[in-house]
Amino acid sequence: MTSVDRWQLPDGIEEVLPAQAATVEQLRRRLLDMFRSWGYELVIPPLVEFTDSLLSGLGQDLDLLTFKLTDQLSGRSMGVRADITPQVARIDAHSLAPEGVSRLCYAGSTLHTRPKSLMASRSPIQLGAELYGDDSLAADVEVIRLMLATLDAAELDAAYTLDLGHVGVYEAVLATADLDEAQEAAIFDCLQRKSVPDLLLALDNVPEDIATLIIGLVDLHGDDEVLVAARELFADRVPQALIAVDALQDVATDIRRQCPDLSIYFDLAELRGYHYHTGIVFAAYVPGRGQALANGGRYNGVGEVFGRSRPATGFATDLKSLMGLLPATQERQGAISMPDSDDLELLAKVAQLRAEGEIVINNLSSEPDSRCDRALVHSDGEWLVQEI
Amino acid sequence: MTSVDRWQLPDGIEEVLPAQAATVEQLRRRLLDMFRSWGYELVIPPLVEFTDSLLSGLGQDLDLLTFKLTDQLSGRSMGVRADITPQVARIDAHSLAPEGVSRLCYAGSTLHTRPKSLMASRSPIQLGAELYGDDSLAADVEVIRLMLATLDAAELDAAYTLDLGHVGVYEAVLATADLDEAQEAAIFDCLQRKSVPDLLLALDNVPEDIATLIIGLVDLHGDDEVLVAARELFADRVPQALIAVDALQDVATDIRRQCPDLSIYFDLAELRGYHYHTGIVFAAYVPGRGQALANGGRYNGVGEVFGRSRPATGFATDLKSLMGLLPATQERQGAISMPDSDDLELLAKVAQLRAEGEIVINNLSSEPDSRCDRALVHSDGEWLVQEI
Repeated sequence: MTSVDRWQLPDGIEEVLPAQAATVEQLRRRLLDMFRSWGYELVIPPLVEFTDSLLSGLGQDLDLLTFKLTDQLSGRSMGVRADITPQVARIDAHSLAPEGVSRLCYAGSTLHTRPKSLMASRSPIQLGAELYGDDSLAADVEVIRLMLATLDAAELDAAYTLDLGHVGVYEAVLATADLDEAQEAAIFDCLQRKSVPDLLLALDNVPEDIATLIIGLVDLHGDDEVLVAARELFADRVPQALIAVDALQDVATDIRRQCPDLSIYFDLAELRGYHYHTGIVFAAYVPGRGQALANGGRYNGVGEVFGRSRPATGFATDLKSLMGLLPATQERQGAISMPDSDDLELLAKVAQLRAEGEIVINNLSSEPDSRCDRALVHSDGEWLVQEI
Repeated sequence: MTSVDRWQLPDGIEEVLPAQAATVEQLRRRLLDMFRSWGYELVIPPLVEFTDSLLSGLGQDLDLLTFKLTDQLSGRSMGVRADITPQVARIDAHSLAPEGVSRLCYAGSTLHTRPKSLMASRSPIQLGAELYGDDSLAADVEVIRLMLATLDAAELDAAYTLDLGHVGVYEAVLATADLDEAQEAAIFDCLQRKSVPDLLLALDNVPEDIATLIIGLVDLHGDDEVLVAARELFADRVPQALIAVDALQDVATDIRRQCPDLSIYFDLAELRGYHYHTGIVFAAYVPGRGQALANGGRYNGVGEVFGRSRPATGFATDLKSLMGLLPATQERQGAISMPDSDDLELLAKVAQLRAEGEIVINNLSSEPDSRCDRALVHSDGEWLVQEI
């Protein structure tokens, strides 16, 4: 073991150093303040929970992403959170258990056993908002608007597009077939990856008319024409799918009313995430970047394992990803050097300068800190700030 | 597995719900802003690191507190940080590697395999500041003053006292004996617990004059008389210990100059922490609470395993502990209900109210959110805020 090995960080596990850390902190505050002003209340879920509560009913994807630990006090299995959304669902269902609508938000580090996608961080700083207790499309629209407002407030150096999908399309198609669990899982996996060759294999024993519908989903992505094509494809054979198509149309219309210039794409094979979504799903992309900048969707019933099934919709983003799209940061703020003295007038002056937002650094050695462009000097009986 | 089991959190692993979470967030911001104004720059170390870098040279205490994971990408052992200080030392030594003094600060969740003391959290939100590259007592004094300023800025509902110790006293005494490692470890352990019966056992084979000195340490705690007693005890037999006693006197004098009303206690058997301290150690206590509110000390040379040995001193506190000592929180802020509408004048008014710090909640259902004490209503062609 050389000292070089010792300071290396694991792949995908990043530290954030001063210049960028200040930016991340400012962004975090700006976004949490915005969530607050929309009525979303901050909660701070713990880093770890029992796997029973962290993963119940949320599918294998999240399970595989989650590091497991043994609790030395109880002997039970705990997981380091790979996603904060299930924790907030537990808080809504059990810890708060409100009667009506509740709006919650959070910001915190998560940990993944492996990167969710090529180049993805294994330690995102997840920031998000969740709306519980309302099953209307209006709630989905509110959350999508909050996601768009989040990206706008971040003042990214890039334009983004909105992708909309609806799990109900795929579910309606699937309901017309009679597939076993393994087959469903294989098809779901191929659709997520949009791999037609694999999909053809997975659909080997599926009746041809249904197989055609499922393969048809892969091509149903693009602008509003997609909804027209979907209506034609499903009108006779899967009329239940049209409910989801109508919902997508309604949500897009609502979003466009406030954001007329936003590019909206539809993707009917989009099954994002961890099997836990149940309705509208959405994501914001910057063209040329594979990873979504922010995403979310409806996930009714996640609270059921905690004794309380609630309608739920929400979104999340990663502060580290956003940071990568911020314009180059401004210059480092200058600072004022102060002598290491107990002079009461000096201390009062320093307290005042610091309260005004200045950085005042106690000078311990002969050389002031390299950030100092000014110094406190005693002149004619008072302490003055002078250029160095 | 009942649903009741599912929502239970592991012992010592807490979630923070809305009313308290807002307080924690405000406190976090206030303290990080203060650190910044003193010249301490924020860094964000990762949740996990290789155990080789997280634990090297830091002793068994921290090792036992640290949850271990296997990195699936490298096969190497990683630890979930139980303490952020060693991470910041690594950042100073390797990632930043500045020439002169550097000042860094941080705030983040940590995880402990077991509570550090009775009633302690296993998931503290550690917040702290570190000063590297200066070996003077003035640097220790600066960090102690920052710790006191932190507690003052938190506006706790309790008075606190400052405990000062110096590892050099014990080291000087120990250097006069010729003990093996196991014996030293046993004595260190008994001293930390201040258990005289255990200490007598551990000192069984130690020459009587040295055993007397070590047992004498246990009683050397209290006010300034302690330093007088220490000088008498060590003057002839362990003159090297007087360097540490003088340092304690100097630091106390310096601290009292700015904080004349602060109660300062000395504790010469205080060997706080994880074996990694090397000089002055300090802690703030609220009478009646066993656990220190904040603590720290000098830990020169921790960066050595990262290829760069640097003088270091710093302190840390736990936001969750501070939260427990805050006065009862004020009333929940009221909110304004807005109709779920796309009226552009309404949206402009809402944006303005939110920018002014108001909480404006979109009304999705017939009943406005329970926080709403006012509503936006359309009257005579304009949107007005009216009491509900």
